[in-house]
Amino acid sequence: MSSQTEHKSDKKLLSEKIKDVRIAMMTTTEPDGTLRSRPMATQDLKAVEFDGDLWFFTYATAPKVGDVEQHQQVNLSYSKPGDNLYISVSGTGQLVQDRQKIKDLWNPIYKAWFPKGQDDPDLALLKVHVESAEYWDAPSGKMGALYSV
Amino acid sequence: MSSQTEHKSDKKLLSEKIKDVRIAMMTTTEPDGTLRSRPMATQDLKAVEFDGDLWFFTYATAPKVGDVEQHQQVNLSYSKPGDNLYISVSGTGQLVQDRQKIKDLWNPIYKAWFPKGQDDPDLALLKVHVESAEYWDAPSGKMGALYSV
Ligand SMILES: Cc1cc2nc3c(=O)[nH]c(=O)nc-3n(C[C@H](O)[C@H](O)[C@H](O)COP(=O)(O)O)c2cc1C
Repeated sequence: MSSQTEHKSDKKLLSEKIKDVRIAMMTTTEPDGTLRSRPMATQDLKAVEFDGDLWFFTYATAPKVGDVEQHQQVNLSYSKPGDNLYISVSGTGQLVQDRQKIKDLWNPIYKAWFPKGQDDPDLALLKVHVESAEYWDAPSGKMGALYSV
Repeated sequence: MSSQTEHKSDKKLLSEKIKDVRIAMMTTTEPDGTLRSRPMATQDLKAVEFDGDLWFFTYATAPKVGDVEQHQQVNLSYSKPGDNLYISVSGTGQLVQDRQKIKDLWNPIYKAWFPKGQDDPDLALLKVHVESAEYWDAPSGKMGALYSV
């Protein structure tokens, strides 16, 4: 399938496409090599602009954090079947425990997954440094390269 | 998040949940370790029952096939944001070039991605042998183990 490269490093376009979906399936590699994914809510991109990193709340002790410490590469997939929109983001993950950053990114919607709120000492951030991204937005499967560093 | 194990090895439930979404984001590991995903149409589960393997049409020469030959593990994520449904399937991928199996699974909807149809000599199947699966179907993030071999 042909790849269109006119949008390379288009942070704004990537940000707009992700904003539309918000919940990513984050795939990590487990210690035995298994690839596992789970839904994760991306930072509010309306409030905090995309500058090359995507941010997710996590518990510092969560298994996915252990996965990322052993094998940094992650994939984020964003799917909106109703609009035929599919996005693949490749990057590296890193645990961030900066309390100020946690405060800056906190939003009450995260209470659904972190009921103890922003002062929970186990609450942390998983920063994904984006290395490349692509999208598909037509039933025919035409693809666009969105971003690459 | 708590894991509920009452549905272990529930092929029927996994099949029903997947049927509802059909397009998976398939994540593979590239030779340099990058995790990449792309949308892929799962076999028609209304026509061909799930017996532990999921089937996808591919070109035999596609980059994802090369990924899988070097690193068998794949993840399939199925997302239906409108229903708050997210599924993660972990398994191993294998290229299958059996012409009879291609005929059995062929369906005109695949013409969107394989315009030359079922007689295209480069047309092949990617079989994913499912090792485990989980799902999330409530905003609170409660998870169910769906399947494990
Ligand atoms: C909705 C949708 C469904 C797709 N289904 C398939 C499929 O079943 N098989 C396939 O090879 N490509 C399919 N594609 C195209 C792939 O996503 C991808 O662009 C192509 O297979 C090349 O992938 P690769 O370069 O990673 O090997 C689909 C694209 C879209 C948008």
